[in-house]
Amino acid sequence: MEKHQTRLRVRYAETDQMGVVYHSNYLIWMELGRTEYCRARGVRYRDMEAGDGIWLAVVDAHCRYASPARYDDEIVVTTRIALANRRVVEFAYELCSDTGRAIATGETKHVFLGATLRPASLPEKYYALFGIQS
Amino acid sequence: MEKHQTRLRVRYAETDQMGVVYHSNYLIWMELGRTEYCRARGVRYRDMEAGDGIWLAVVDAHCRYASPARYDDEIVVTTRIALANRRVVEFAYELCSDTGRAIATGETKHVFLGATLRPASLPEKYYALFGIQS
Amino acid sequence: MEKHQTRLRVRYAETDQMGVVYHSNYLIWMELGRTEYCRARGVRYRDMEAGDGIWLAVVDAHCRYASPARYDDEIVVTTRIALANRRVVEFAYELCSDTGRAIATGETKHVFLGATLRPASLPEKYYALFGIQS
Amino acid sequence: MEKHQTRLRVRYAETDQMGVVYHSNYLIWMELGRTEYCRARGVRYRDMEAGDGIWLAVVDAHCRYASPARYDDEIVVTTRIALANRRVVEFAYELCSDTGRAIATGETKHVFLGATLRPASLPEKYYALFGIQS
Repeated sequence: MEKHQTRLRVRYAETDQMGVVYHSNYLIWMELGRTEYCRARGVRYRDMEAGDGIWLAVVDAHCRYASPARYDDEIVVTTRIALANRRVVEFAYELCSDTGRAIATGETKHVFLGATLRPASLPEKYYALFGIQS
Repeated sequence: MEKHQTRLRVRYAETDQMGVVYHSNYLIWMELGRTEYCRARGVRYRDMEAGDGIWLAVVDAHCRYASPARYDDEIVVTTRIALANRRVVEFAYELCSDTGRAIATGETKHVFLGATLRPASLPEKYYALFGIQS
Repeated sequence: MEKHQTRLRVRYAETDQMGVVYHSNYLIWMELGRTEYCRARGVRYRDMEAGDGIWLAVVDAHCRYASPARYDDEIVVTTRIALANRRVVEFAYELCSDTGRAIATGETKHVFLGATLRPASLPEKYYALFGIQS
Repeated sequence: MEKHQTRLRVRYAETDQMGVVYHSNYLIWMELGRTEYCRARGVRYRDMEAGDGIWLAVVDAHCRYASPARYDDEIVVTTRIALANRRVVEFAYELCSDTGRAIATGETKHVFLGATLRPASLPEKYYALFGIQS
């Protein structure tokens, strides 16, 4: 499956007193990767929520930290779908500096929820987005 | 009007590479002050939202920084109501270390919104909470 | 004095259960405005810290909220210097949606600190950046 | 090995527009668990950093989300050490509501770094804290 790349600039607010990025922020950067992955395939995630009442709830998140990101670094987030079906989607991420230094890798697993935040089956119109066979 | 005090412990995540607390976190601590101010007067703010569809939307926030807070410091947030009527409430805050060192002072001004996030008049049952005369 | 504009995309993590951006995040967006203001004038703020041991510590922050920003909105941050001398610099900000809707306005005041986080006088090489007359 | 419990109250700032806690915040709560685990055993983590120049850098973080935490919920974080030696320590966490509902479980793995953020061997005085045999 195809990969998608997006870039972000490290914010001062994201650093901690160790002088590097606080580790929970990487999960937020993965969220940016997912959002832009969808947008690049023609879907705004906010329209899935607002238009179709479909929510992607995180059920598992994992991050391996290779080397620290620092304030003002430009970070490249590479996002791909590792697994997807009507119930579940798993994204995989690689975070690098703009010079190619490995920062981190990770995965997040999501279930699809309906408007009342109960498990839902993904509408067929989104199968192509996640690479699910009809 | 009476003051209310609550305490919190500075989190590592709240520091930045200057080695002190990042300045936007003080607004979050003021939120803790408001929540506990209400609880001490018998009202859970979440019940105002969930039960009565009343939301306090911030329209103005101001913070003056006196001396830095650091990781693991215990902070005392003193909260009082500076002004209140059916449309608007203003909270004032003093943030100190547990040794009495001044950290910051600030104010937040809020309007009451109804369920569709439009301006609403505060229900009378909450007048006492904010010290509003009927 | 000249204004500088930078753009950002609202993150899911920045919203709260009111369905809009949590108010303390606007201070972080102002930080992005400052950083990019400096970069556009040829100075990386991180070099001021790392190279010259000069830190801009926030001593006052004020934000007026006009209308809510929402997830995935594109926000334009317009930054200008309101006041500057060897000891103090004040930035002023306007936050708008990309359709021109006013989101917020604000100001942050900073003092220059040296390596031990004590008040310092700004080195002359940075006078031009902040529009200070020699 | 012994477990340690600490409690925290969910902040409004920690929620997102799904109406529940944004998932990266659980990593911050695990940090609170670690800090209080150490304090309960007589060690302030900040003294390890400031006094001995020893830093615990996260190299791996994993979280499984069982059910959502919500604003104003009281959360119980149970922390234990899963593995420790001179180079590495791994913490395991259980997050529950105060009514015993499972919120999440997770692990973080850390390496010890010295003052220049290079791998270091843990000083013997901290062996007891982490349950390492001399």
